[in-house]
Amino acid sequence: MRGKRGRTAAIVAVVLAMAAVAGGAIASGGRGHDKSDDVRRAIDDGRARNVIYFLGDGMGDSEITVARNYELGAAGRFKGIDAPLFTGEATTWAVEESNPSLPNYVTDSAASGTAWATGVKTSNGRISTTAGTDKDLRTILERADRLGYRTGNVTTAELTDATPAVLDSHVNDRGCQGPANMANCASDKKSAGGAGSIAEQTVDHHVDVLLGGGKARFDQTIDGGPDTGKTVIQSAQRQGYEVVTDRTGLLAARSGKRLLGLFNPSNMVTEWNGPIAQPYPAGAAAVKCDESFRTTTAPNQPTLAEMTTKAIQLLDGGRHDRNGFYLQVEGASIDKQDHAENACAQIGETVEFDKAIQVGLAYARTHPDTLIVVTADHAHTSQIIEAGQTATHHSPGAITTLTTKEGATLVVNYATNIHGQSQDHTGSEVRVAAQGPQAANVLGVVDQTDLNHLLASAIGAE
Amino acid sequence: MRGKRGRTAAIVAVVLAMAAVAGGAIASGGRGHDKSDDVRRAIDDGRARNVIYFLGDGMGDSEITVARNYELGAAGRFKGIDAPLFTGEATTWAVEESNPSLPNYVTDSAASGTAWATGVKTSNGRISTTAGTDKDLRTILERADRLGYRTGNVTTAELTDATPAVLDSHVNDRGCQGPANMANCASDKKSAGGAGSIAEQTVDHHVDVLLGGGKARFDQTIDGGPDTGKTVIQSAQRQGYEVVTDRTGLLAARSGKRLLGLFNPSNMVTEWNGPIAQPYPAGAAAVKCDESFRTTTAPNQPTLAEMTTKAIQLLDGGRHDRNGFYLQVEGASIDKQDHAENACAQIGETVEFDKAIQVGLAYARTHPDTLIVVTADHAHTSQIIEAGQTATHHSPGAITTLTTKEGATLVVNYATNIHGQSQDHTGSEVRVAAQGPQAANVLGVVDQTDLNHLLASAIGAE
Repeated sequence: MRGKRGRTAAIVAVVLAMAAVAGGAIASGGRGHDKSDDVRRAIDDGRARNVIYFLGDGMGDSEITVARNYELGAAGRFKGIDAPLFTGEATTWAVEESNPSLPNYVTDSAASGTAWATGVKTSNGRISTTAGTDKDLRTILERADRLGYRTGNVTTAELTDATPAVLDSHVNDRGCQGPANMANCASDKKSAGGAGSIAEQTVDHHVDVLLGGGKARFDQTIDGGPDTGKTVIQSAQRQGYEVVTDRTGLLAARSGKRLLGLFNPSNMVTEWNGPIAQPYPAGAAAVKCDESFRTTTAPNQPTLAEMTTKAIQLLDGGRHDRNGFYLQVEGASIDKQDHAENACAQIGETVEFDKAIQVGLAYARTHPDTLIVVTADHAHTSQIIEAGQTATHHSPGAITTLTTKEGATLVVNYATNIHGQSQDHTGSEVRVAAQGPQAANVLGVVDQTDLNHLLASAIGAE
Repeated sequence: MRGKRGRTAAIVAVVLAMAAVAGGAIASGGRGHDKSDDVRRAIDDGRARNVIYFLGDGMGDSEITVARNYELGAAGRFKGIDAPLFTGEATTWAVEESNPSLPNYVTDSAASGTAWATGVKTSNGRISTTAGTDKDLRTILERADRLGYRTGNVTTAELTDATPAVLDSHVNDRGCQGPANMANCASDKKSAGGAGSIAEQTVDHHVDVLLGGGKARFDQTIDGGPDTGKTVIQSAQRQGYEVVTDRTGLLAARSGKRLLGLFNPSNMVTEWNGPIAQPYPAGAAAVKCDESFRTTTAPNQPTLAEMTTKAIQLLDGGRHDRNGFYLQVEGASIDKQDHAENACAQIGETVEFDKAIQVGLAYARTHPDTLIVVTADHAHTSQIIEAGQTATHHSPGAITTLTTKEGATLVVNYATNIHGQSQDHTGSEVRVAAQGPQAANVLGVVDQTDLNHLLASAIGAE
């Protein structure tokens, strides 16, 4: 919170001063739309009826540009990712487990997610627990839940992966995803009297809508408590969840029960595919992406946009309902395919993430008291480097050469780790964009922990 | 201009609507300062008495974060670079010389500079001339000059390098820097009846303050026109320039004459120095930077902050003067040292660039009708990757491992070209920040050509 109050006060002052100088004049703008109400919500005391937090895992500015260039051309603009007017950069760093006063300049998704979920920096691998001392940290979803918000958690990764997990779970090791994966979290086991694995905590938390991959974690058997001997899915059903496992089931789901959608044993299938990057000269041969990879290999898997649509539909209680909702939507495999040096899969996931954001923006058009945030948890490996790689001028890592839809050559470089190994996250600040209540607070340079306070203010928790 | 007017109208609407919703209330903010006048200037119809355009060459978000981490720590904030509240991302791309309808996703500084200097995309290597057809393009400095603004051009590179050149020169090849370097610009030679090299055009343009390196270009002999047989420096003196070549001369310069400061035969000496990045394992040994490199090797070279201070002092005509000024200040060697895989020199130049921006911000505090823009011309190579590089997990390129001032380990990766070769620019969008008149127009995602229209609006040229 250091410095945050002063910065917030300054932004409030700017926005209120805008009032004074314009002297009460009302402008309708170029589109014939009076934005007064939109703007009121962007200023500091705005409260959000609904929050949709869109998180592109590993979607640094470079990843956004790679996808934009390929799909829309250099002069193109995403209708989702690029749309919010209020924009800033967020710093992303973790702390050291052995000495939490020291930074770790390259965060993982667990520490990064904990930062915006709880407002507290932690060490890599931790899920909403403190570095060194392993205390549980209250999350924004928990606070929203207590305030009466419906809650939702949507991802293309396993539902037990770090980014969804930080909202509804507290473990010292992100690997403790199912009851059979608890080697590093012995005291959290249900048989040891703990809260259980991420899968168990997620279900026991009664999050209203849970959609993603990771079914294999939920098929594991619970080893303690009232559901001993049951699978996590059976426990979920006992606790009032409808469980669906494919697109057909998802689209048929109706409000009235909690919904647990598990669409893959592990991570969901990526929308697109293409070759793994290769060192020069192999990587210099221009290719195009296979954009029908998912539709041919997993035709009954829902898209992220479909999951987002259904989540909003189920969480929106209608105009006569008192309560709004808090929803997180993660485009998870931008990161995973960046790790894997697969430019086409990475781009396809970014394009699909953009479609999901468009769903949120369409909802916000008719529900303007909705805060939309679009950001990333950390930057990543992929870089756009010069076309025309040669024997004496080429990446020392692996490259993929793409012919973009506008017909130009795009060389994507993967060179933060040895080719064939998982590529590194990088430590650059990342873009954050927002519209709706509190959106003006993303301006300038913020930290991920500031985003927690923005979210908390938006739901009236601070 | 496509789309620009609609976007501008939307921003105007937002800002004016802010007036309406806040109902005329005046807030003094947390700092006891009524920002009404500041804010009036940020909106669309604001005119700037002065413009200071700070350009960090190659200063992508990653480069900013590298320098911030080293100098101030992960939680630190630059008082210059990070200060402006209005922020967005700018796309940076060039076009192909042979087919200007096709993009080149990795721009050089010449095409990039031409974009904001003229509002027109060109091909790499061109200085304010059109791709394919080689027509001269009117620059923002030329427009400011015609409107009565005093003009200044400050850089740590050669004054004839691409970024300063785009303001006051028109050649088809950025290499045509002095009268003896005209092999690729034969028709521009003075002896052929042309406007001459970049050095000649710069001086003949009568820019009021010219400060930087590149003296060797100005020592070359003119081969045509009234100054045939003279050096460019002698021609400058004949045309009313005072010429200084060191810090002492700079600090002693007084207004009344045009000023040409040439502080190095080539690029100016960097403030800091350190080891060139090396492949693993050599690059994994932690080092600290030599921060006194320039003060020991070139003690009578002015700093960028000193050049900025003097430029503003000479360009500011005082309160009774009708005219303001247009000044560009380039931190050039962020880029050059990124090319050279020298993390310490790159960081030191970023830190010095920040100090120059602080000079501009201090001036703007007492001259609030000053537009300040802080941006980069393109992203670059350096990335922050994981500490603890090992034989099985390390960069395929070259790395420098630094112990930062807060005592943590920062690994900087250079891996866009073969180690020892000049590293590549990269194609990511870059941060743009602004305060003062027109500043709100940097919000969201813009293109570098949009910045030209922002600047032109600020000086009343559009």
